Amino acid sequence: MAEKVVLAYSGGLDTSVCIGWIAEQTGAEVIAVAVDVGQGGEDLEEIRKRALACGAVEAEVADARDEFAEEYCVPALKANALYQDRYPLVSSLSRPTIVKHLAAAAKKHGATTVAHGCTGKGNDQVRFEVGIASLAPELKCIAPVRDYGMTRDKAIAFAEVNGLPIETTKKNPYSIDQNLWGKAVETGFLEDIWNGPIEDLYSYTQDPAAAREPDEVVITFTKGVPTAIDGKPVTPLEAILEMNRRAGAQGVGRIDMVEDRLVGIKSREVYEAPGAIALIVAHQELENVTVERELARFKRTVDQRWGELVYDGLWFSPLKRALDGFIDEANEHVSGDIRMTLHGGRAVVTGRRSGESLYDFNLATYDTGDVFDQSLAKGFIELFGLPSKIAAKRDLGK
Amino acid sequence: MAEKVVLAYSGGLDTSVCIGWIAEQTGAEVIAVAVDVGQGGEDLEEIRKRALACGAVEAEVADARDEFAEEYCVPALKANALYQDRYPLVSSLSRPTIVKHLAAAAKKHGATTVAHGCTGKGNDQVRFEVGIASLAPELKCIAPVRDYGMTRDKAIAFAEVNGLPIETTKKNPYSIDQNLWGKAVETGFLEDIWNGPIEDLYSYTQDPAAAREPDEVVITFTKGVPTAIDGKPVTPLEAILEMNRRAGAQGVGRIDMVEDRLVGIKSREVYEAPGAIALIVAHQELENVTVERELARFKRTVDQRWGELVYDGLWFSPLKRALDGFIDEANEHVSGDIRMTLHGGRAVVTGRRSGESLYDFNLATYDTGDVFDQSLAKGFIELFGLPSKIAAKRDLGK
Amino acid sequence: MAEKVVLAYSGGLDTSVCIGWIAEQTGAEVIAVAVDVGQGGEDLEEIRKRALACGAVEAEVADARDEFAEEYCVPALKANALYQDRYPLVSSLSRPTIVKHLAAAAKKHGATTVAHGCTGKGNDQVRFEVGIASLAPELKCIAPVRDYGMTRDKAIAFAEVNGLPIETTKKNPYSIDQNLWGKAVETGFLEDIWNGPIEDLYSYTQDPAAAREPDEVVITFTKGVPTAIDGKPVTPLEAILEMNRRAGAQGVGRIDMVEDRLVGIKSREVYEAPGAIALIVAHQELENVTVERELARFKRTVDQRWGELVYDGLWFSPLKRALDGFIDEANEHVSGDIRMTLHGGRAVVTGRRSGESLYDFNLATYDTGDVFDQSLAKGFIELFGLPSKIAAKRDLGK
Amino acid sequence: MAEKVVLAYSGGLDTSVCIGWIAEQTGAEVIAVAVDVGQGGEDLEEIRKRALACGAVEAEVADARDEFAEEYCVPALKANALYQDRYPLVSSLSRPTIVKHLAAAAKKHGATTVAHGCTGKGNDQVRFEVGIASLAPELKCIAPVRDYGMTRDKAIAFAEVNGLPIETTKKNPYSIDQNLWGKAVETGFLEDIWNGPIEDLYSYTQDPAAAREPDEVVITFTKGVPTAIDGKPVTPLEAILEMNRRAGAQGVGRIDMVEDRLVGIKSREVYEAPGAIALIVAHQELENVTVERELARFKRTVDQRWGELVYDGLWFSPLKRALDGFIDEANEHVSGDIRMTLHGGRAVVTGRRSGESLYDFNLATYDTGDVFDQSLAKGFIELFGLPSKIAAKRDLGK
Repeated sequence: MAEKVVLAYSGGLDTSVCIGWIAEQTGAEVIAVAVDVGQGGEDLEEIRKRALACGAVEAEVADARDEFAEEYCVPALKANALYQDRYPLVSSLSRPTIVKHLAAAAKKHGATTVAHGCTGKGNDQVRFEVGIASLAPELKCIAPVRDYGMTRDKAIAFAEVNGLPIETTKKNPYSIDQNLWGKAVETGFLEDIWNGPIEDLYSYTQDPAAAREPDEVVITFTKGVPTAIDGKPVTPLEAILEMNRRAGAQGVGRIDMVEDRLVGIKSREVYEAPGAIALIVAHQELENVTVERELARFKRTVDQRWGELVYDGLWFSPLKRALDGFIDEANEHVSGDIRMTLHGGRAVVTGRRSGESLYDFNLATYDTGDVFDQSLAKGFIELFGLPSKIAAKRDLGK
Repeated sequence: MAEKVVLAYSGGLDTSVCIGWIAEQTGAEVIAVAVDVGQGGEDLEEIRKRALACGAVEAEVADARDEFAEEYCVPALKANALYQDRYPLVSSLSRPTIVKHLAAAAKKHGATTVAHGCTGKGNDQVRFEVGIASLAPELKCIAPVRDYGMTRDKAIAFAEVNGLPIETTKKNPYSIDQNLWGKAVETGFLEDIWNGPIEDLYSYTQDPAAAREPDEVVITFTKGVPTAIDGKPVTPLEAILEMNRRAGAQGVGRIDMVEDRLVGIKSREVYEAPGAIALIVAHQELENVTVERELARFKRTVDQRWGELVYDGLWFSPLKRALDGFIDEANEHVSGDIRMTLHGGRAVVTGRRSGESLYDFNLATYDTGDVFDQSLAKGFIELFGLPSKIAAKRDLGK
Repeated sequence: MAEKVVLAYSGGLDTSVCIGWIAEQTGAEVIAVAVDVGQGGEDLEEIRKRALACGAVEAEVADARDEFAEEYCVPALKANALYQDRYPLVSSLSRPTIVKHLAAAAKKHGATTVAHGCTGKGNDQVRFEVGIASLAPELKCIAPVRDYGMTRDKAIAFAEVNGLPIETTKKNPYSIDQNLWGKAVETGFLEDIWNGPIEDLYSYTQDPAAAREPDEVVITFTKGVPTAIDGKPVTPLEAILEMNRRAGAQGVGRIDMVEDRLVGIKSREVYEAPGAIALIVAHQELENVTVERELARFKRTVDQRWGELVYDGLWFSPLKRALDGFIDEANEHVSGDIRMTLHGGRAVVTGRRSGESLYDFNLATYDTGDVFDQSLAKGFIELFGLPSKIAAKRDLGK
Repeated sequence: MAEKVVLAYSGGLDTSVCIGWIAEQTGAEVIAVAVDVGQGGEDLEEIRKRALACGAVEAEVADARDEFAEEYCVPALKANALYQDRYPLVSSLSRPTIVKHLAAAAKKHGATTVAHGCTGKGNDQVRFEVGIASLAPELKCIAPVRDYGMTRDKAIAFAEVNGLPIETTKKNPYSIDQNLWGKAVETGFLEDIWNGPIEDLYSYTQDPAAAREPDEVVITFTKGVPTAIDGKPVTPLEAILEMNRRAGAQGVGRIDMVEDRLVGIKSREVYEAPGAIALIVAHQELENVTVERELARFKRTVDQRWGELVYDGLWFSPLKRALDGFIDEANEHVSGDIRMTLHGGRAVVTGRRSGESLYDFNLATYDTGDVFDQSLAKGFIELFGLPSKIAAKRDLGK
């Protein structure tokens, strides 16, 4: 009986060719698994049929959009996850979602191997393979592009020779990955880092410079999770879709950066993440209002490590679980409303209100009603500054 | 012989009244010291004369703009200093500059005390007094508003009764502090954190939503310091002034946030810092290009602590010096050009080039010329993911 | 009707005098509350009677030893809490325990104020008062020694004049605080930091240099909590008592250090904590065996912050709760046995075994049975070292 | 003309065989380089001759003991470097020293390749190869044991067949590495982590349990560097040798632990480092006396990262240089004397004195001479605890 390989299938040229390529290289039967994480494009049923037409012995498709929103995007939002202070971890979040479905399919079908379409110089190969190792350590991983020399040219030739029902003519000059949380574009002329991006790259966002009316939105969070928009209850999926639409229409969330890959090189990346950026900005400001100072200061360190860890493909690691223990507790009181203006590429908070607010008007005001006892300051300053003062006595004149 | 008090003098109503108020309360002679850190407004010589007219026995003024730019703003830029990821430390930076001049004047004149106009619930009192304690631990500090009950109403009455040459009618509803690095506005209707800011608050920036042409600028850094703009050599002071002008004209650098004060309360703050924000964004991206990954990751932790420390008034502390030891070394290769588009409130990097770049086209490209050996990935992924995999074997099914 | 003050009562001279002193100074009725956190000494009922005899309107005593062990010492153990890498937080842990009982008594009796016997230059005043502010923010705090000039001499005179049933003759040259988790000694000749400690200071530990037989012990942990000693099930209280006895008999756990107090000064402290040190050493090594590398690395940062926070009196703070979220998750697999030799002042781990071990003999061995694939190393090293290599190419010769 | 390979040569069986093995496998000429980092054993000239006798075309030996002490051990001491809070980085420090000599020899001789005797599952291969990549990125690295299947048995056979002048009979059951800073032992029966170590493993230290007289020593540091012992000036090398001798004679510095290797597995290690441990304990306490609190707190994070980085083989990385910038600045005032008692396996500080001390007797004392103003505490406590208090008002009863 033939071994079985579960393939992460997108419906595109590369993974369609992978089906036959893997069969040729390994003699295994290929089971195609396609996961909808909000990447848009074709109907899942179309994709399923194509996989079978390309030679898969089985093909499974799953609508994982709610799961992706709730179990992957929401934790990223609670962690204000921005790798290098910029990138909201678009692909880094979808990979573990897909890995979970691949591992489940492998178990169900008795497969021994998981295959994916990544190259050998990106981050996603790590996310796939470390994810699989963490969920199903008994499985092997293969990547035909990296391991079996399946170049683009050879893939096109293979598709034509074998009459695969997939277009081979259109050559997108960019490498693109997209999902609910955003879109990533790389390669092409962007590899010259002095070149600026062009309007053509963007599909989630309108040109921020175009003239239009601002859009005001009120986002309600409950324990760090967006639960209503303009007063209308929403699921996480709905919140992200709605904010993608509205923030995208105002050109919010374009990112252009040089990034440190896990595999040791720097690469140029262009991202769009209108909903993610608007939600993170709102969440950060609600934290400013509801999270105590020392907790807020330490949380920045935790949030940064969370982002690095997830970027590095360690979603299913013990450290990730422990960081989540901290982050969930820190979000316990992050509830309330944030009013934002979306306009001209900017998502600007203009108001916040919360039953969990730690902002105390009577302590903060310089007006009537001030209850802050200013006489306390003297003692505070003396003792707070004492270590510096003692050191200064020693160090002065040296 | 009377004791001498050195007063941090601004030329405004409060500190003009302080001169006589301190004399009445303490019997001391008051020496007024005004320091120009780029706050604009009146001529220094006018301010000097007013101090004397208000009763100061001596009055000194100093143009500290170059010093402020070079020794305070530039280190903040090297640290990408943004308190709570937002606020570029406008007032936090000017206070130690002023403190240095106060301590020098106290030494020169044999004063025993330094006075400032702060209230007892803000951060600046801490910055003044911990600063003085660190530079001249033998000096006492007094704050008439906080310590001698000098309220605004009493100050106005004092000025009128004593015929001080200072206007007492105009009541600004806001508390404002400004310098080269930006402007801070608080109090008034902003104390209701659901209220949005109004256009009236802003003077460093134009309305970002107004229609206008974008402005493209190329900033050159040498070891983290801005040294040319559009190819024209500049001093740090000139770089900040020029970027304030150009980024301000495009509405860049407005900030509206709830902030954690050192004295234990949350407050609402509105800032403008067009030059600071544009320069920090450019510096961050040049670091992305020229700073090695592990150094960049740890530097975020160092930068955060640097910002907290300076916000907390510990500029002259031993920890500050040690953090600078790290940060200066980390900026050793942060040299090169950043091209930015300033428009509609956004400062967007569109290109970077550097003789110190760690971006390696031949390793990054997916095109002809690729020298990255993809066969290395397999071993890397296995060993990098091994701890997670071993843990997973234990934890699965639990 | 008179106001009521709840007093943290120890049964000693100072707090016995406080009862009458507070009554005189404030006109309030004093309710004495004594909490047994394992400090040893007198019977609780004796202490209760003395409080009444000294003028308390009510006196309450509580055996909080199990509560202290389970809710305060165990979390410290899970955090390997050692302030400045040395001090196991003896007094820092008992203060919040006592605070909880004081706040509950204040609520029960309708008191408006809590009083304690601390001076104004130590850490414990902060721990008491910030603790009370966090559990019962409506209560006032007073400290007669600090606030009402109750010096030692005046206290003795007060006791004699009023015929209080308490000894006033014996003057201990040291300031001592002790509980289940250890003992702290300060002041006296120790204030000269060149003086070494003398045998006289110690009561929890025997002289480590004395000749005796070693003691071997096996400690079993379950999720970070000690649950058996030499195979015999124990509660946390029993574990600590037993280890105090056995490690103390071998001279383990003496500490002599200069320490950074929260109030801004350095002080000299001598501690004994035989059980705490032995348990922490065992727990750390069990973490080495059962906690994944990246989690272990980050946990050091979390543990350090936990220790600082608790030392600083912020037990009841939001950050403490969030850190515990991390630490509890990290201890989820810290189960197994540690064998230690206690001897000559040393607690030395000699063996570890665990069903949750991540040590994999077959991966670690260099002998028959080795399953580690050494061919993976090449790729790992290349990519792991790539950022350094790229930077080196730039930096060499500069 | 044949390519040239520079081999890290120890004089032992494995690297003696490597000379011929490499020649056979690659056709290259082998240049043997032996570096004395204080590992003891044979005379360097003997080693040099053996290399030539085993077929090396050239053989170079270097006494790098002073260099190793000053440039590698001293920075580790300034960083209090203890990986996993235990291991003073013995092998991690010698590898970059050796790498520097290998790279220099390769340059001098025009070699294209560097070879070392490591296996493929340890840390040292990473330290060698990442070090070489960072100092001489154009060189290749090979490891015959890992890359050319040179097992122990084959090495013995090779030596016998080729009549190499090296003993092949004695089989040490352990893998040992040693230098000035300490000794590492692994494998053998230690691979069962329930087994305790036996006296046989140790050569740097006497049995701590043996009866003997204590030894008291005074170590003088200047800016973090040991400069005198018992008043007699010493070089760093002399300080380490002397402390190895004296602390070793008292059984100080034995370590037995399970450790997280960089290559992803846990391993069991036994170390001896009498001088290193005694010096680090002394240095830490002198920091307690001379380093300001906030600097000391942050330095722990920096020290930890320094230790991880060096353990991980990144000695020549940009992050290492920046951390050293911090650490050097932090050691600027770490000058003074530490008195220690060495006895029974313990190195216990009993006194400290320093012209740079921040311990202020008059602030610390509870006796006559106390200048600490206790009235300042009230204001300090109120404002320090205010964030917790405000949060508590919100959170109570929830």
